[in-house]
Amino acid sequence: MSFFSDLDQRIASANSLLCVGLDPDAAKLPPQVSLFDFNRRVIDATQAHVCAYKLNFAFYEAEGINGWEVLKETLRYIPADIPAIADAKRADIGNTSKAYAYAAFDELGFDAVTVNPYLGFDSIEPFLEYRDRGVFILCRTSNPGAADFQSLLVSTGEHTIPLYQVVAEKATQWNTFGNIGLVMGATSIDDLRLIRQQHPELPFLVPGIGSQGGDLELAVLHGRNFQRTGLIINASRQVIFASSGPDFADAAGRSAKKLKDEINRYR
Amino acid sequence: MSFFSDLDQRIASANSLLCVGLDPDAAKLPPQVSLFDFNRRVIDATQAHVCAYKLNFAFYEAEGINGWEVLKETLRYIPADIPAIADAKRADIGNTSKAYAYAAFDELGFDAVTVNPYLGFDSIEPFLEYRDRGVFILCRTSNPGAADFQSLLVSTGEHTIPLYQVVAEKATQWNTFGNIGLVMGATSIDDLRLIRQQHPELPFLVPGIGSQGGDLELAVLHGRNFQRTGLIINASRQVIFASSGPDFADAAGRSAKKLKDEINRYR
Repeated sequence: MSFFSDLDQRIASANSLLCVGLDPDAAKLPPQVSLFDFNRRVIDATQAHVCAYKLNFAFYEAEGINGWEVLKETLRYIPADIPAIADAKRADIGNTSKAYAYAAFDELGFDAVTVNPYLGFDSIEPFLEYRDRGVFILCRTSNPGAADFQSLLVSTGEHTIPLYQVVAEKATQWNTFGNIGLVMGATSIDDLRLIRQQHPELPFLVPGIGSQGGDLELAVLHGRNFQRTGLIINASRQVIFASSGPDFADAAGRSAKKLKDEINRYR
Repeated sequence: MSFFSDLDQRIASANSLLCVGLDPDAAKLPPQVSLFDFNRRVIDATQAHVCAYKLNFAFYEAEGINGWEVLKETLRYIPADIPAIADAKRADIGNTSKAYAYAAFDELGFDAVTVNPYLGFDSIEPFLEYRDRGVFILCRTSNPGAADFQSLLVSTGEHTIPLYQVVAEKATQWNTFGNIGLVMGATSIDDLRLIRQQHPELPFLVPGIGSQGGDLELAVLHGRNFQRTGLIINASRQVIFASSGPDFADAAGRSAKKLKDEINRYR
């Protein structure tokens, strides 16, 4: 089996393209709820509605050793048929990326990871060598600063295209094992549509709806492939912090169901 | 005080531009030496010869919770007058980078960090806001894949320059608090020389000598500024794995002294 076939299977069985981001910003947790209990109750309430969970390492690292323990514990708690993505945005020189890949895939046991392309092929190769895992390469991110470098026009010799397009082309060239996907933000729909047209086969991980203001309908319409799948839509704060009170888990469940249904209407 | 003035002070007092990378790849440790003992003994043996230590997070994350504990313990063990750099190569959307900055600077307590520029300004700003800490932005890295994107020619409207030059220009624009440096690999001396000419004021962190094959003499000659400083040269494997036997610490000390002296001959 491989990550993307497992993901497709889960998309079908849950009838959902929704990925929930378990990013438990400690400053936003309801009073007297521990980091792990928060995650556990959000997972209980949302699992029927998701195709995957994504854990952003920053919010765990910010809590030090306890955070790292909660990261492991949360990963163990996620049901086995729901893929878990390490949103770690790692990359380093080859020798070092090998240690990062070991950390995400062996030490922790994630099914997929996000990586940053700036250091080039040998920084991503160690992740790709885990053929049964998924590797989402940052292509066009959802944040305002994305335009600073990703949208710069690059001369490749043949043509002049934005840097993020070069990243997508390289990703396709590097995709020997079929385990690469792209991070394409919902905040720049034209870019997402273009990359979908040019790379019909590459799965997208789409952040940027909700708090970041991306358009969900357009993201689904232009991000889906011919099978009306090929993308997963991530929502973090919009789901897990739907309520800041003691009903946070119920609110997260309702928010996840609503998003799942809305996405299904558009695809 | 600020990171770069602390660093200059240490460069002067130790008469050294050498930064030792504490990257204790567990597979290469001498038998029956724990991760922390390895670091402790390397620090004891090398501290007279270094201006800074750099800890690459990958090798600690690969060891899970124990690795994270050793990371903290090692940081506490480094003498207070020697700056410690978190070689974490982090960056994410603003909201998330804030958590990464908190993790590196508050939760762990590092003096400086390395960051990846691909996500643009808002991914780096949360680190810069720690005005007393240093932020080394990856510009031209030392690995083979660096050329994949960093050397692509970019049209900025005014001129056509490689992407890494655009990164250096942005770094200068963003340097409101004077706490930015650049990572410039010793494996591409022409690029390093060019960036030094264009940005005489930006401190360089230079990896890539030793195992990676960069030329030390040329890196110092072309990387130094008018004060014959402005760069620190990192060596990791060459120092800490100078011997794989029980004499590893003495060998690391000798290797560090030799490198320090060699660098001083060239500057």
